[in-house]
Amino acid sequence: MTPSTSTFSARLDEAARLVEASLEALLADNLRHGEIARPARLMEAMRHAALGGGKRLRPFLTIEAARLFGVEGQGPLRAGSAVELLHCYSLVHDDLPSMDDDDLRRGRPTVHRAYDEATAILVGDALQTLAFEVLADPETDPDPAVRSDLVLGLARASGLGGMVGGQLLDLSAEGRYGAVTMSEAAVRQLQMMKTGAILTFAVEAGAILGKADAGARRSLMEYGRALGAAFQVADDILDREATPEALGKRTGKDQEKGKATLVDLLGLDGAKRESRQLVEKADAALEGFGDRAQTLREAVRFVVEREV
Amino acid sequence: MTPSTSTFSARLDEAARLVEASLEALLADNLRHGEIARPARLMEAMRHAALGGGKRLRPFLTIEAARLFGVEGQGPLRAGSAVELLHCYSLVHDDLPSMDDDDLRRGRPTVHRAYDEATAILVGDALQTLAFEVLADPETDPDPAVRSDLVLGLARASGLGGMVGGQLLDLSAEGRYGAVTMSEAAVRQLQMMKTGAILTFAVEAGAILGKADAGARRSLMEYGRALGAAFQVADDILDREATPEALGKRTGKDQEKGKATLVDLLGLDGAKRESRQLVEKADAALEGFGDRAQTLREAVRFVVEREV
Repeated sequence: MTPSTSTFSARLDEAARLVEASLEALLADNLRHGEIARPARLMEAMRHAALGGGKRLRPFLTIEAARLFGVEGQGPLRAGSAVELLHCYSLVHDDLPSMDDDDLRRGRPTVHRAYDEATAILVGDALQTLAFEVLADPETDPDPAVRSDLVLGLARASGLGGMVGGQLLDLSAEGRYGAVTMSEAAVRQLQMMKTGAILTFAVEAGAILGKADAGARRSLMEYGRALGAAFQVADDILDREATPEALGKRTGKDQEKGKATLVDLLGLDGAKRESRQLVEKADAALEGFGDRAQTLREAVRFVVEREV
Repeated sequence: MTPSTSTFSARLDEAARLVEASLEALLADNLRHGEIARPARLMEAMRHAALGGGKRLRPFLTIEAARLFGVEGQGPLRAGSAVELLHCYSLVHDDLPSMDDDDLRRGRPTVHRAYDEATAILVGDALQTLAFEVLADPETDPDPAVRSDLVLGLARASGLGGMVGGQLLDLSAEGRYGAVTMSEAAVRQLQMMKTGAILTFAVEAGAILGKADAGARRSLMEYGRALGAAFQVADDILDREATPEALGKRTGKDQEKGKATLVDLLGLDGAKRESRQLVEKADAALEGFGDRAQTLREAVRFVVEREV
């Protein structure tokens, strides 16, 4: 297997371009069904939060997973954009003063710095709502069973038992709700909830759109879980090794806050070894898809080797 | 038409009891599909936000609207509970220090006072997610077209062009983003977005569950809009006339913040006259439903005459 890196980055770039255009249209100034106004300040701040940045990895995964089943075009693009909107909402709320208190995101001021705290809270709220609106809209898929499956999957990945629950555990890990010692198992659980669940759903969404059978859907979710874990290990390594300039956000945050990461628990070499094992696990999950899954194989390598 | 007040309050109380039990089950300690944990602090704070209070007017409207089409039981109860979860999320975020900065809600400490600000933000986030999860779950309705219609309706009523957009306009009306003079039309638009849209959807949800034809659905939405407007006029009157002890929250807030209400624009007598006109409008919208809609007729009177 020779990774065709140039084809891969061309696909990733092309997906990012399409996602940007799709988000641009969703956050445009035109009134939608039943709306009597779109308050300008809120819309501008939502655009600040969602446009002009990011690798758009999550929608890319949805698009590539759906392609395995021959499904392309508006459906995967809109479903992937919904996952990205959900991701952007989580960043806006995580950056708030009472949470991680960050001033920079993707090299630009965070929403509460560019606007104000109240606006930032409402931006996150409205981006979350929009994510579900996009998934439930017939334009995403003519089959209502597909749409309600997408909504259910995103909700389960992002609520109390998923991303938001993970964020609460992350705040607890700083010791703000009493002293804690995080075991390796607890760190893994936190990471699976906080970032892994949405990445896994991004892949699963492609399977839902492709009306995959139970076995194929399960394999893709296994792939998604391995990719999600690999993403987080890479994040922990970057937080230790990269510069703020390269990342466009603060680094060394976890150490500063006394939060245990996998790098603390496994050492830098151990974390890198785990990365390699997760790539193998992702490959194994994709076995049944043959050559068609080449881009997804390269995606997990990209996640591990990325420098931003 | 003799209003049978005692039957009405018995129905309202019975619905509130059922909704409480339904919310209690949704926020219980048992793991759901795909969850690996439900962080205790977050779950407790969500229970603080959603349980043990409120008239549960929104789910009552869903239950009674669905009953017009012979649909009863778990479906309307779950859909109504979802609308209530959405409503509770909006209260938690509106009460935050950077928004309305309130310490009391339903006579108890607000979530950020009982817990902390970060937890309150996450509670709102997770309650919103749970609302969509409940609607998309097959337990709410076996027909996926009904489920995705419910999701789409709630999302449209609560996002940028609905409730959250209305909250941003409400903050703007305080002058915090520059001086503003609110016309009567602007106040009405703000209120329609901030509180009217969700109340209207609560009624529409019953029509969706009942697979109402287009005409019946339109009539019920007209009823919902009149009820929503009546609710807001009554709120403005109560904010001027009631005591904090009776309401379980601060009063006179709008005056304090220099926000124009319908009472300012129409005078107290004018506002009360408008209330009566809205009751007539609601009655007119229900004409086609005959005696079956008696409870909904009483609901709009209850909304206008309530003292809390």
